[in-house]
Amino acid sequence: MSNPTAAILIIGNEILSGRTQDVNVQFIAQRLAELGIKLQEVRVVPDVPQRIIGAVNELRAAYGMLFTTGGIGPTHDDITSECIAAAFGVPWEVHEETAREMKERMGERYNAARQRMATMPRGAIPIRNEASIAPGFSIGNVHVMAGVPRIMQSMMQALEPSLPRGERIEMRAVYGLGVMEGAIAEGLAAIQDRFPALDLGSYPFKRDGAWGVALVAKGTDLPAIEEATRQATDLIAAQGVEPVQGEPPIF
Amino acid sequence: MSNPTAAILIIGNEILSGRTQDVNVQFIAQRLAELGIKLQEVRVVPDVPQRIIGAVNELRAAYGMLFTTGGIGPTHDDITSECIAAAFGVPWEVHEETAREMKERMGERYNAARQRMATMPRGAIPIRNEASIAPGFSIGNVHVMAGVPRIMQSMMQALEPSLPRGERIEMRAVYGLGVMEGAIAEGLAAIQDRFPALDLGSYPFKRDGAWGVALVAKGTDLPAIEEATRQATDLIAAQGVEPVQGEPPIF
Repeated sequence: MSNPTAAILIIGNEILSGRTQDVNVQFIAQRLAELGIKLQEVRVVPDVPQRIIGAVNELRAAYGMLFTTGGIGPTHDDITSECIAAAFGVPWEVHEETAREMKERMGERYNAARQRMATMPRGAIPIRNEASIAPGFSIGNVHVMAGVPRIMQSMMQALEPSLPRGERIEMRAVYGLGVMEGAIAEGLAAIQDRFPALDLGSYPFKRDGAWGVALVAKGTDLPAIEEATRQATDLIAAQGVEPVQGEPPIF
Repeated sequence: MSNPTAAILIIGNEILSGRTQDVNVQFIAQRLAELGIKLQEVRVVPDVPQRIIGAVNELRAAYGMLFTTGGIGPTHDDITSECIAAAFGVPWEVHEETAREMKERMGERYNAARQRMATMPRGAIPIRNEASIAPGFSIGNVHVMAGVPRIMQSMMQALEPSLPRGERIEMRAVYGLGVMEGAIAEGLAAIQDRFPALDLGSYPFKRDGAWGVALVAKGTDLPAIEEATRQATDLIAAQGVEPVQGEPPIF
């Protein structure tokens, strides 16, 4: 497949402690699907230098792009930026243009802590954005973004025009309430065999005390996706259940 | 620190495609904190055998426990169980007791697809649960659970009595609306220096168009956590802002 590949690295104790529900993965995943970039792995690591550096180097080597979120604020637990410099083996130094811009916009509020946010690995390109004065940055194939969702989203939006793209990844779904996965597994495997280039997924859900199953076809060949979805629809109907096109409502 | 460590492996294309918002990580993370188990890493990988096998072997070696979610249903894309067998280098075979129980409860609905759910790595111990007839299983330090949240939660509940425990990990938070992280970063670093055994985190949030910051102290020494939180409270008050105990309301 000709789609570029990507990984996401979430840096932050707050996800691992259960304090915070991550919502960045789904946002980035959906944007990447839109751009035709295949998200292949996600990792969450704590705010520990060797863990961040190790994960950055593994993931940037394994995939076409790496997106990181978290750890680029002004406080002591924001260590992503210097860890990226260490991962690339380059100095971590004040980015003069960014420092100048931040000083201009913040005036006397520009202090030592905020200067950390203008400090980047040598060679980094700032990701300027609407939501925050301090930018994220890109270096090589690594894109370093904030953890706060609305700032991350703004950085992602700023980044998108410069990302490599592939054929858009399409998805179609059909579901049946009252269908058990175990009853249709064989028929579904046969459809998958007929469309080897597609990913055919089966996702059970429960609503009003009854189980249902959503069948999802995913890939870049839209006519094939539509035909596979039609066959999945027949499979549900053959169970004596009314198939419904699309995803089941959130349960 | 004497707390046992753990990792989570989420197996499923549906998270990587952006179709599904994962909610299992936060649930497991919160239960582990309650049990005094330190969650150190999370990975999400696609339904690809070598990716699952590789991640299982890395994570079970690196941490005290590994919890997996997803891929143990009856359909062709449910390949976690045979991958765990491959990771451990043991046969993947029908677990007779589980097969007997499933047959008894399902009658003629017990078909080849469902027998897959009674097939486990040799030596696995089933995780029986209230939410599904088919169990998860444990093998060595790896606990294999369903991806559907309510089934996973029921399996986690069934597992908990048998897990090793550590000192409960406590968290206290205080927040101030109208405080900027950059203004308190220095004072916060000083508190962190006074309590090296605690994790002191700083998390910006936005409400009604204004930024605030939540300061969170985490660790096993409750008196130290309470004193650090008191000092964080003073830090917010010194900004001329009313500190509020606890986490900010969801934004």
